[in-house]
Amino acid sequence: MDHNPTACILIIGNEVLSGRTRDANLQFLATELGALGIPVREVRVIPDVERVIVDTVNECRARFTHVFTTGGIGPTHDDITSECIARVFGVAWEPHPVAWKRMADFYAAQTPPGDFNAARQRMATMPRGASLIENEATIAPGFTMGNVHVMAGVPRIMQSMFRALAPSLQRGKPVVSATVHADGVFEGQIAAALEAVQKNHPELDIGSYPYFRPMPVRGGVALVAKGTDGDAVAQASAEITALLIAAGGQPVQGEPVLDP
Amino acid sequence: MDHNPTACILIIGNEVLSGRTRDANLQFLATELGALGIPVREVRVIPDVERVIVDTVNECRARFTHVFTTGGIGPTHDDITSECIARVFGVAWEPHPVAWKRMADFYAAQTPPGDFNAARQRMATMPRGASLIENEATIAPGFTMGNVHVMAGVPRIMQSMFRALAPSLQRGKPVVSATVHADGVFEGQIAAALEAVQKNHPELDIGSYPYFRPMPVRGGVALVAKGTDGDAVAQASAEITALLIAAGGQPVQGEPVLDP
Repeated sequence: MDHNPTACILIIGNEVLSGRTRDANLQFLATELGALGIPVREVRVIPDVERVIVDTVNECRARFTHVFTTGGIGPTHDDITSECIARVFGVAWEPHPVAWKRMADFYAAQTPPGDFNAARQRMATMPRGASLIENEATIAPGFTMGNVHVMAGVPRIMQSMFRALAPSLQRGKPVVSATVHADGVFEGQIAAALEAVQKNHPELDIGSYPYFRPMPVRGGVALVAKGTDGDAVAQASAEITALLIAAGGQPVQGEPVLDP
Repeated sequence: MDHNPTACILIIGNEVLSGRTRDANLQFLATELGALGIPVREVRVIPDVERVIVDTVNECRARFTHVFTTGGIGPTHDDITSECIARVFGVAWEPHPVAWKRMADFYAAQTPPGDFNAARQRMATMPRGASLIENEATIAPGFTMGNVHVMAGVPRIMQSMFRALAPSLQRGKPVVSATVHADGVFEGQIAAALEAVQKNHPELDIGSYPYFRPMPVRGGVALVAKGTDGDAVAQASAEITALLIAAGGQPVQGEPVLDP
Protein backbone atom coordinates (compact mmCIF):
# COMPACT_ATOMS: atom_id res chain seq x y z
CA MET A 1 0.00 0.00 0.00
CA ASP A 2 3.09 2.20 -0.18
CA HIS A 3 1.98 4.24 -3.16
CA ASN A 4 -1.54 4.90 -2.00
CA PRO A 5 -2.53 8.31 -0.69
CA THR A 6 -2.77 8.41 3.11
CA ALA A 7 -5.22 9.90 5.58
CA CYS A 8 -5.09 11.28 9.10
CA ILE A 9 -8.24 11.89 11.13
CA LEU A 10 -8.36 14.63 13.77
CA ILE A 11 -11.25 14.34 16.19
CA ILE A 12 -11.57 17.75 17.81
CA GLY A 13 -13.54 18.06 21.02
CA ASN A 14 -13.28 18.07 24.79
CA GLU A 15 -16.35 15.84 24.99
CA VAL A 16 -14.52 12.87 23.46
CA LEU A 17 -11.41 13.39 25.61
CA SER A 18 -13.50 13.52 28.79
CA GLY A 19 -15.39 10.33 27.95
CA ARG A 20 -18.75 12.15 27.82
CA THR A 21 -19.20 11.24 24.15
CA ARG A 22 -18.09 8.00 22.52
CA ASP A 23 -16.62 8.81 19.14
CA ALA A 24 -18.59 7.31 16.27
CA ASN A 25 -16.71 8.89 13.38
CA LEU A 26 -13.37 7.07 13.37
CA GLN A 27 -14.74 3.70 12.34
CA PHE A 28 -16.99 5.16 9.63
CA LEU A 29 -14.21 7.24 8.09
CA ALA A 30 -11.58 4.50 8.38
CA THR A 31 -13.83 2.02 6.61
CA GLU A 32 -14.92 4.42 3.87
CA LEU A 33 -11.42 5.73 3.24
CA GLY A 34 -9.98 2.22 3.11
CA ALA A 35 -12.50 1.34 0.42
CA LEU A 36 -11.32 4.39 -1.56
CA GLY A 37 -7.70 3.26 -1.29
CA ILE A 38 -6.85 6.09 1.11
CA PRO A 39 -5.87 4.16 4.25
CA VAL A 40 -5.99 5.96 7.58
CA ARG A 41 -2.48 6.01 9.07
CA GLU A 42 -3.11 7.97 12.26
CA VAL A 43 -5.95 9.35 14.34
CA ARG A 44 -5.69 11.99 17.03
CA VAL A 45 -8.27 13.20 19.49
CA ILE A 46 -7.44 16.72 20.64
CA PRO A 47 -9.13 19.37 22.78
CA ASP A 48 -10.82 22.63 21.74
CA VAL A 49 -7.59 24.56 22.33
CA GLU A 50 -6.32 26.84 19.58
CA ARG A 51 -2.61 26.19 19.96
CA VAL A 52 -3.11 22.43 19.99
CA ILE A 53 -5.41 22.48 16.96
CA VAL A 54 -3.11 24.72 14.91
CA ASP A 55 0.06 22.78 15.74
CA THR A 56 -1.57 19.40 15.16
CA VAL A 57 -3.10 20.34 11.81
CA ASN A 58 0.19 21.81 10.64
CA GLU A 59 2.13 18.69 11.61
CA CYS A 60 -0.37 16.27 10.11
CA ARG A 61 -1.07 18.08 6.84
CA ALA A 62 2.65 17.86 6.11
CA ARG A 63 2.84 14.14 6.90
CA PHE A 64 -0.29 12.77 5.24
CA THR A 65 -1.97 13.19 1.86
CA HIS A 66 -5.26 14.17 3.48
CA VAL A 67 -6.34 15.40 6.90
CA PHE A 68 -10.00 14.99 7.86
CA THR A 69 -11.21 16.89 10.92
CA THR A 70 -14.47 16.31 12.77
CA GLY A 71 -15.97 18.66 15.33
CA GLY A 72 -15.79 22.28 16.36
CA ILE A 73 -17.65 23.99 13.49
CA GLY A 74 -20.91 24.84 15.26
CA PRO A 75 -22.03 28.25 16.52
CA THR A 76 -20.84 28.22 20.14
CA HIS A 77 -17.70 29.66 21.77
CA ASP A 78 -16.02 26.23 21.94
CA ASP A 79 -16.36 25.76 18.17
CA ILE A 80 -13.01 27.14 17.07
CA THR A 81 -11.85 24.72 14.36
CA SER A 82 -12.67 27.05 11.47
CA GLU A 83 -10.71 30.02 12.87
CA CYS A 84 -7.81 27.70 13.63
CA ILE A 85 -7.68 26.47 10.03
CA ALA A 86 -7.49 30.09 8.82
CA ARG A 87 -4.52 30.56 11.13
CA VAL A 88 -2.93 27.33 9.85
CA PHE A 89 -3.06 28.64 6.28
CA GLY A 90 -2.25 32.24 7.19
CA VAL A 91 -5.39 33.65 5.55
CA ALA A 92 -8.27 35.82 6.67
CA TRP A 93 -11.26 34.28 8.44
CA GLU A 94 -14.14 36.00 6.72
CA PRO A 95 -17.71 35.54 5.47
CA HIS A 96 -17.88 32.89 2.75
CA PRO A 97 -20.11 34.52 0.11
CA VAL A 98 -22.03 31.39 -0.89
CA ALA A 99 -22.48 29.97 2.61
CA TRP A 100 -23.37 33.38 4.03
CA LYS A 101 -26.08 34.11 1.46
CA ARG A 102 -27.53 30.63 1.79
CA MET A 103 -27.79 30.85 5.56
CA ALA A 104 -29.12 34.42 5.53
CA ASP A 105 -31.82 33.36 3.05
CA PHE A 106 -32.63 30.26 5.10
CA TYR A 107 -33.30 32.17 8.31
CA ALA A 108 -35.19 34.98 6.48
CA ALA A 109 -37.51 32.37 4.93
CA GLN A 110 -38.51 30.85 8.28
CA THR A 111 -41.93 31.61 9.74
CA PRO A 112 -41.49 33.68 11.81
CA PRO A 113 -38.12 34.77 10.39
CA GLY A 114 -35.16 33.27 12.26
CA ASP A 115 -32.36 35.38 13.59
CA PHE A 116 -29.18 35.12 11.49
CA ASN A 117 -27.29 36.26 14.55
CA ALA A 118 -23.60 36.49 15.30
CA ALA A 119 -23.44 32.87 16.46
CA ARG A 120 -25.00 31.54 13.27
CA GLN A 121 -22.89 33.89 11.17
CA ARG A 122 -19.83 32.11 12.60
CA MET A 123 -20.91 29.00 10.70
CA ALA A 124 -20.78 30.98 7.43
CA THR A 125 -17.38 32.44 8.27
CA MET A 126 -14.44 30.51 6.82
CA PRO A 127 -10.80 30.78 5.82
CA ARG A 128 -10.43 32.81 2.63
CA GLY A 129 -10.39 30.45 -0.35
CA ALA A 130 -12.30 27.61 1.33
CA SER A 131 -14.26 25.20 -0.91
CA LEU A 132 -17.59 24.20 0.58
CA ILE A 133 -18.41 20.63 1.57
CA GLU A 134 -22.15 20.31 1.19
CA ASN A 135 -24.41 18.21 3.37
CA GLU A 136 -28.05 17.16 3.25
CA ALA A 137 -28.63 17.24 6.98
CA THR A 138 -28.20 20.92 7.83
CA ILE A 139 -27.86 24.33 6.19
CA ALA A 140 -24.27 24.83 7.40
CA PRO A 141 -21.54 23.37 5.17
CA GLY A 142 -18.07 22.09 5.96
CA PHE A 143 -15.10 23.13 3.87
CA THR A 144 -11.78 22.11 2.35
CA MET A 145 -8.57 24.16 2.54
CA GLY A 146 -5.68 22.55 0.70
CA ASN A 147 -5.51 18.94 1.89
CA VAL A 148 -7.51 19.64 5.07
CA HIS A 149 -11.18 18.66 5.05
CA VAL A 150 -13.21 20.22 7.86
CA MET A 151 -16.40 18.41 8.82
CA ALA A 152 -19.01 18.40 11.57
CA GLY A 153 -18.74 16.22 14.66
CA VAL A 154 -22.36 15.02 14.69
CA PRO A 155 -22.15 11.64 12.92
CA ARG A 156 -25.23 12.07 10.73
CA ILE A 157 -23.96 15.42 9.43
CA MET A 158 -20.35 14.25 9.09
CA GLN A 159 -21.43 11.24 7.05
CA SER A 160 -23.45 13.40 4.70
CA MET A 161 -20.47 15.73 4.28
CA PHE A 162 -18.15 12.81 3.60
CA ARG A 163 -20.45 11.43 0.93
CA ALA A 164 -20.42 14.85 -0.75
CA LEU A 165 -16.65 15.10 -0.50
CA ALA A 166 -15.64 11.57 -1.49
CA PRO A 167 -16.07 11.87 -5.29
CA SER A 168 -13.50 14.68 -5.37
CA LEU A 169 -10.78 12.68 -3.57
CA GLN A 170 -8.08 11.05 -5.66
CA ARG A 171 -8.32 7.35 -4.98
CA GLY A 172 -5.65 4.74 -4.49
CA LYS A 173 -5.90 1.01 -5.00
CA PRO A 174 -8.72 -0.20 -2.75
CA VAL A 175 -7.62 -2.07 0.34
CA VAL A 176 -9.16 -5.55 0.35
CA SER A 177 -9.12 -7.99 3.21
CA ALA A 178 -9.97 -11.61 3.93
CA THR A 179 -10.78 -12.91 7.41
CA VAL A 180 -10.75 -16.53 8.57
CA HIS A 181 -11.62 -17.51 12.13
CA ALA A 182 -11.58 -20.72 14.12
CA ASP A 183 -13.07 -21.48 17.51
CA GLY A 184 -10.81 -23.15 20.03
CA VAL A 185 -7.56 -22.02 18.40
CA PHE A 186 -5.47 -19.53 20.37
CA GLU A 187 -2.82 -17.09 19.30
CA GLY A 188 -0.05 -18.74 21.27
CA GLN A 189 -0.48 -21.92 19.19
CA ILE A 190 -0.28 -20.38 15.74
CA ALA A 191 1.99 -17.38 16.15
CA ALA A 192 5.04 -18.93 14.48
CA ALA A 193 3.08 -20.23 11.48
CA LEU A 194 1.30 -16.89 11.12
CA GLU A 195 4.57 -15.01 11.18
CA ALA A 196 5.69 -17.21 8.27
CA VAL A 197 2.61 -16.09 6.31
CA GLN A 198 3.55 -12.47 7.01
CA LYS A 199 7.08 -13.13 5.75
CA ASN A 200 5.72 -14.77 2.60
CA HIS A 201 3.67 -11.63 1.90
CA PRO A 202 5.59 -8.61 3.17
CA GLU A 203 3.33 -6.28 1.16
CA LEU A 204 0.28 -7.36 3.18
CA ASP A 205 -0.79 -6.66 6.76
CA ILE A 206 -1.43 -9.99 8.48
CA GLY A 207 -3.32 -9.46 11.72
CA SER A 208 -4.41 -11.73 14.55
CA TYR A 209 -7.38 -10.92 16.78
CA PRO A 210 -8.47 -13.17 19.62
CA TYR A 211 -12.13 -13.28 20.51
CA PHE A 212 -13.90 -14.50 23.61
CA ARG A 213 -17.13 -16.34 24.19
CA PRO A 214 -18.71 -17.74 27.32
CA MET A 215 -17.54 -21.21 28.36
CA PRO A 216 -17.31 -23.97 27.23
CA VAL A 217 -16.32 -22.73 23.77
CA ARG A 218 -14.08 -19.94 25.16
CA GLY A 219 -13.56 -18.27 21.79
CA GLY A 220 -10.80 -18.47 19.27
CA VAL A 221 -8.85 -16.35 16.87
CA ALA A 222 -9.70 -14.31 13.76
CA LEU A 223 -6.86 -13.92 11.26
CA VAL A 224 -6.95 -11.12 8.72
CA ALA A 225 -4.95 -10.62 5.51
CA LYS A 226 -5.19 -7.11 4.11
CA GLY A 227 -3.65 -5.16 1.26
CA THR A 228 -4.14 -3.76 -2.20
CA ASP A 229 -3.11 -6.92 -4.10
CA GLY A 230 -6.21 -9.11 -4.21
CA ASP A 231 -4.35 -12.19 -5.49
CA ALA A 232 -1.85 -11.98 -2.64
CA VAL A 233 -4.68 -11.58 -0.14
CA ALA A 234 -6.37 -14.71 -1.53
CA GLN A 235 -3.09 -16.66 -1.38
CA ALA A 236 -2.41 -15.55 2.20
CA SER A 237 -5.96 -16.46 3.17
CA ALA A 238 -5.41 -20.00 1.82
CA GLU A 239 -2.20 -20.28 3.86
CA ILE A 240 -4.05 -19.04 6.94
CA THR A 241 -6.79 -21.63 6.44
CA ALA A 242 -4.14 -24.35 6.21
CA LEU A 243 -2.38 -23.27 9.41
CA LEU A 244 -5.67 -23.19 11.34
CA ILE A 245 -6.39 -26.76 10.21
CA ALA A 246 -2.86 -27.79 11.23
CA ALA A 247 -3.60 -26.32 14.69
CA GLY A 248 -6.67 -28.55 15.01
CA GLY A 249 -9.20 -25.86 14.16
CA GLN A 250 -12.15 -25.81 11.78
CA PRO A 251 -11.60 -22.57 9.86
CA VAL A 252 -14.58 -20.49 8.81
CA GLN A 253 -14.33 -17.60 6.38
CA GLY A 254 -15.38 -14.22 7.72
CA GLU A 255 -15.58 -12.67 11.17
CA PRO A 256 -16.91 -14.69 14.10
CA VAL A 257 -20.44 -13.83 15.17
CA LEU A 258 -20.30 -12.96 18.83
CA ASP A 259 -23.17 -12.78 21.24
CA PRO A 260 -23.35 -9.44 22.97
CA MET B 1 -7.38 21.98 36.02
CA ASP B 2 -3.94 23.43 35.30
CA HIS B 3 -2.15 21.79 38.22
CA ASN B 4 -3.59 18.33 37.73
CA PRO B 5 -1.48 15.55 36.27
CA THR B 6 -2.30 14.86 32.62
CA ALA B 7 -2.78 11.72 30.55
CA CYS B 8 -2.28 10.69 26.95
CA ILE B 9 -3.76 7.47 25.57
CA LEU B 10 -2.04 5.62 22.71
CA ILE B 11 -4.24 3.05 20.99
CA ILE B 12 -1.85 0.81 19.08
CA GLY B 13 -3.26 -1.38 16.33
CA ASN B 14 -3.89 -1.62 12.61
CA GLU B 15 -7.34 -3.05 13.32
CA VAL B 16 -8.61 0.23 14.77
CA LEU B 17 -7.08 2.32 11.98
CA SER B 18 -8.66 0.12 9.32
CA GLY B 19 -12.12 0.31 10.88
CA ARG B 20 -12.23 -3.45 11.49
CA THR B 21 -12.46 -2.92 15.24
CA ARG B 22 -14.29 -0.10 16.99
CA ASP B 23 -12.19 1.11 19.88
CA ALA B 24 -13.83 0.57 23.23
CA ASN B 25 -10.97 1.66 25.48
CA LEU B 26 -10.83 5.43 25.01
CA GLN B 27 -14.15 6.16 26.69
CA PHE B 28 -13.46 3.83 29.62
CA LEU B 29 -10.01 5.25 30.29
CA ALA B 30 -11.08 8.87 29.79
CA THR B 31 -13.92 8.49 32.26
CA GLU B 32 -11.87 6.62 34.87
CA LEU B 33 -8.88 8.96 34.59
CA GLY B 34 -11.11 12.03 34.82
CA ALA B 35 -12.53 10.69 38.08
CA LEU B 36 -8.97 10.30 39.41
CA GLY B 37 -8.18 13.91 38.53
CA ILE B 38 -5.87 12.87 35.68
CA PRO B 39 -7.67 14.34 32.66
CA VAL B 40 -6.90 12.91 29.24
CA ARG B 41 -5.41 15.66 27.06
CA GLU B 42 -4.73 13.74 23.86
CA VAL B 43 -5.42 10.36 22.26
CA ARG B 44 -3.61 8.88 19.29
CA VAL B 45 -4.39 5.78 17.29
CA ILE B 46 -1.25 4.50 15.60
CA PRO B 47 -0.30 1.43 13.55
CA ASP B 48 1.80 -1.59 14.52
CA VAL B 49 4.91 0.05 13.07
CA GLU B 50 8.05 0.22 15.20
CA ARG B 51 9.26 3.65 14.15
CA VAL B 52 5.84 5.21 14.66
CA ILE B 53 5.36 3.60 18.08
CA VAL B 54 8.82 4.60 19.32
CA ASP B 55 8.59 8.18 18.09
CA THR B 56 5.05 8.67 19.38
CA VAL B 57 5.78 7.27 22.84
CA ASN B 58 8.90 9.41 23.13
CA GLU B 59 7.02 12.56 22.14
CA CYS B 60 4.06 11.91 24.41
CA ARG B 61 5.92 10.74 27.52
CA ALA B 62 7.74 14.08 27.49
CA ARG B 63 4.53 16.11 27.12
CA PHE B 64 2.15 14.39 29.53
CA THR B 65 2.39 13.16 33.12
CA HIS B 66 1.23 9.68 32.11
CA VAL B 67 1.02 7.72 28.86
CA PHE B 68 -1.34 4.74 28.73
CA THR B 69 -0.96 2.35 25.80
CA THR B 70 -3.47 -0.29 24.74
CA GLY B 71 -2.78 -3.08 22.28
CA GLY B 72 0.15 -4.96 20.83
CA ILE B 73 1.26 -7.09 23.79
CA GLY B 74 -0.02 -10.48 22.65
CA PRO B 75 2.04 -13.39 21.27
CA THR B 76 1.85 -12.77 17.51
CA HIS B 77 4.28 -11.09 15.10
CA ASP B 78 2.20 -7.89 14.98
CA ASP B 79 2.41 -7.49 18.78
CA ILE B 80 5.48 -5.27 18.99
CA THR B 81 4.57 -2.72 21.66
CA SER B 82 6.73 -4.28 24.37
CA GLU B 83 9.92 -4.36 22.25
CA CYS B 84 9.24 -0.78 21.19
CA ILE B 85 9.03 0.38 24.81
CA ALA B 86 12.42 -1.21 25.52
CA ARG B 87 13.81 0.78 22.61
CA VAL B 88 12.15 3.97 23.90
CA PHE B 89 13.92 3.58 27.23
CA GLY B 90 17.17 2.26 25.77
CA VAL B 91 17.15 -0.93 27.85
CA ALA B 92 17.32 -4.63 27.11
CA TRP B 93 14.16 -6.55 26.19
CA GLU B 94 14.52 -9.69 28.26
CA PRO B 95 12.63 -12.30 30.26
CA HIS B 96 10.88 -10.74 33.25
CA PRO B 97 11.70 -13.16 36.08
CA VAL B 98 8.30 -13.02 37.80
CA ALA B 99 6.16 -13.05 34.67
CA TRP B 100 8.29 -15.77 33.07
CA LYS B 101 8.09 -18.14 36.05
CA ARG B 102 4.37 -17.56 36.43
CA MET B 103 3.63 -18.33 32.78
CA ALA B 104 5.98 -21.32 32.67
CA ASP B 105 4.28 -22.75 35.76
CA PHE B 106 0.83 -22.06 34.30
CA TYR B 107 1.45 -23.99 31.10
CA ALA B 108 3.24 -26.82 32.94
CA ALA B 109 0.22 -27.24 35.22
CA GLN B 110 -2.24 -27.67 32.36
CA THR B 111 -3.61 -31.13 31.55
CA PRO B 112 -2.09 -32.10 29.20
CA PRO B 113 0.80 -29.66 29.77
CA GLY B 114 0.62 -26.59 27.52
CA ASP B 115 3.52 -25.49 25.41
CA PHE B 116 5.31 -22.43 26.83
CA ASN B 117 6.58 -21.80 23.33
CA ALA B 118 8.46 -18.89 21.79
CA ALA B 119 5.24 -16.99 21.07
CA ARG B 120 4.01 -17.25 24.64
CA GLN B 121 7.48 -16.45 25.97
CA ARG B 122 7.21 -13.11 24.17
CA MET B 123 4.43 -12.16 26.60
CA ALA B 124 6.85 -12.70 29.52
CA THR B 125 9.61 -10.71 27.83
CA MET B 126 9.73 -7.05 28.86
CA PRO B 127 11.97 -4.03 29.04
CA ARG B 128 14.53 -4.41 31.83
CA GLY B 129 13.17 -2.77 34.99
CA ALA B 130 9.48 -3.08 34.09
CA SER B 131 6.96 -3.20 36.94
CA LEU B 132 4.16 -5.66 36.30
CA ILE B 133 0.53 -4.57 35.94
CA GLU B 134 -1.52 -7.53 37.11
CA ASN B 135 -4.87 -8.58 35.71
CA GLU B 136 -7.53 -11.08 36.71
CA ALA B 137 -8.54 -12.04 33.19
CA THR B 138 -5.39 -13.72 31.86
CA ILE B 139 -2.02 -15.04 32.96
CA ALA B 140 -0.06 -12.41 30.98
CA PRO B 141 0.52 -9.09 32.76
CA GLY B 142 1.02 -5.57 31.41
CA PHE B 143 3.80 -3.37 32.72
CA THR B 144 4.91 0.13 33.62
CA MET B 145 8.18 1.74 32.53
CA GLY B 146 8.67 5.25 33.91
CA ASN B 147 5.47 7.12 33.14
CA VAL B 148 4.39 4.72 30.39
CA HIS B 149 1.74 2.13 31.29
CA VAL B 150 1.47 -0.72 28.78
CA MET B 151 -1.85 -2.56 28.73
CA ALA B 152 -3.71 -5.07 26.61
CA GLY B 153 -6.07 -4.05 23.81
CA VAL B 154 -8.89 -6.47 24.67
CA PRO B 155 -11.26 -4.32 26.74
CA ARG B 156 -11.98 -6.87 29.44
CA ILE B 157 -8.26 -7.44 30.05
CA MET B 158 -7.37 -3.74 29.77
CA GLN B 159 -10.03 -2.82 32.33
CA SER B 160 -8.71 -5.40 34.79
CA MET B 161 -5.18 -4.06 34.29
CA PHE B 162 -6.34 -0.48 34.82
CA ARG B 163 -8.09 -1.39 38.06
CA ALA B 164 -4.84 -2.96 39.28
CA LEU B 165 -2.81 0.07 38.22
CA ALA B 166 -5.09 2.87 39.40
CA PRO B 167 -4.26 2.80 43.14
CA SER B 168 -0.59 3.51 42.36
CA LEU B 169 -1.30 6.64 40.28
CA GLN B 170 -0.91 10.00 41.95
CA ARG B 171 -4.29 11.67 41.74
CA GLY B 172 -5.26 15.23 41.02
CA LYS B 173 -8.42 17.05 41.99
CA PRO B 174 -11.30 15.04 40.55
CA VAL B 175 -12.97 16.60 37.53
CA VAL B 176 -16.65 17.13 38.23
CA SER B 177 -19.31 18.12 35.72
CA ALA B 178 -22.92 19.22 35.62
CA THR B 179 -25.13 18.82 32.56
CA VAL B 180 -28.40 20.62 31.84
CA HIS B 181 -30.40 19.97 28.68
CA ALA B 182 -33.50 21.49 27.11
CA ASP B 183 -35.60 20.22 24.22
CA GLY B 184 -36.40 22.72 21.51
CA VAL B 185 -33.48 25.05 22.28
CA PHE B 186 -30.75 25.26 19.64
CA GLU B 187 -27.16 26.34 19.86
CA GLY B 188 -27.58 29.32 17.57
CA GLN B 189 -30.04 30.87 20.05
CA ILE B 190 -27.94 30.61 23.19
CA ALA B 191 -24.36 30.91 21.95
CA ALA B 192 -23.79 34.49 23.14
CA ALA B 193 -25.25 33.87 26.61
CA LEU B 194 -23.24 30.66 26.92
CA GLU B 195 -20.04 32.42 25.98
CA ALA B 196 -20.73 34.85 28.82
CA VAL B 197 -20.91 31.89 31.24
CA GLN B 198 -17.54 30.69 29.94
CA LYS B 199 -16.08 34.16 30.50
CA ASN B 200 -17.49 34.22 34.04
CA HIS B 201 -15.71 30.94 34.76
CA PRO B 202 -12.47 30.82 32.80
CA GLU B 203 -11.22 27.93 34.94
CA LEU B 204 -14.07 25.68 33.73
CA ASP B 205 -14.76 24.02 30.40
CA ILE B 206 -18.23 25.03 29.26
CA GLY B 207 -19.41 22.78 26.42
CA SER B 208 -22.45 22.74 24.16
CA TYR B 209 -23.70 19.54 22.53
CA PRO B 210 -26.74 19.48 20.25
CA TYR B 211 -28.84 16.34 20.14
CA PHE B 212 -31.41 15.16 17.65
CA ARG B 213 -34.69 13.36 17.95
CA PRO B 214 -37.31 12.39 15.41
CA MET B 215 -39.84 15.10 14.54
CA PRO B 216 -41.81 16.89 15.90
CA VAL B 217 -39.56 17.44 18.93
CA ARG B 218 -36.39 17.73 16.80
CA GLY B 219 -34.03 17.65 19.77
CA GLY B 220 -32.29 20.35 21.69
CA VAL B 221 -29.04 21.16 23.37
CA ALA B 222 -27.10 19.73 26.32
CA LEU B 223 -24.84 22.21 28.13
CA VAL B 224 -21.99 20.96 30.30
CA ALA B 225 -19.91 22.76 32.94
CA LYS B 226 -16.78 20.86 33.94
CA GLY B 227 -13.79 21.46 36.16
CA THR B 228 -12.14 20.69 39.46
CA ASP B 229 -13.89 23.46 41.45
CA GLY B 230 -17.24 22.02 42.47
CA ASP B 231 -18.63 25.35 43.69
CA ALA B 232 -17.81 27.01 40.38
CA VAL B 233 -19.41 24.12 38.48
CA ALA B 234 -22.58 24.52 40.53
CA GLN B 235 -22.64 28.29 39.94
CA ALA B 236 -22.11 27.87 36.20
CA SER B 237 -24.84 25.24 36.10
CA ALA B 238 -27.26 27.72 37.68
CA GLU B 239 -26.33 30.34 35.08
CA ILE B 240 -26.85 27.78 32.33
CA THR B 241 -30.27 26.89 33.69
CA ALA B 242 -31.22 30.58 33.66
CA LEU B 243 -30.09 31.11 30.08
CA LEU B 244 -32.06 28.09 28.88
CA ILE B 245 -35.18 29.49 30.54
CA ALA B 246 -34.52 32.87 28.92
CA ALA B 247 -34.39 31.10 25.54
CA GLY B 248 -37.85 29.64 26.14
CA GLY B 249 -36.67 26.18 27.18
CA GLN B 250 -37.59 23.94 30.08
CA PRO B 251 -34.19 22.95 31.49
CA VAL B 252 -33.70 19.44 32.87
CA GLN B 253 -30.64 18.41 34.85
CA GLY B 254 -28.60 15.60 33.35
CA GLU B 255 -28.10 14.21 29.87
CA PRO B 256 -31.08 13.81 27.54
CA VAL B 257 -32.34 10.26 27.11
CA LEU B 258 -32.30 9.51 23.42
CA ASP B 259 -34.08 6.71 21.65
CA PRO B 260 -31.70 4.61 19.61
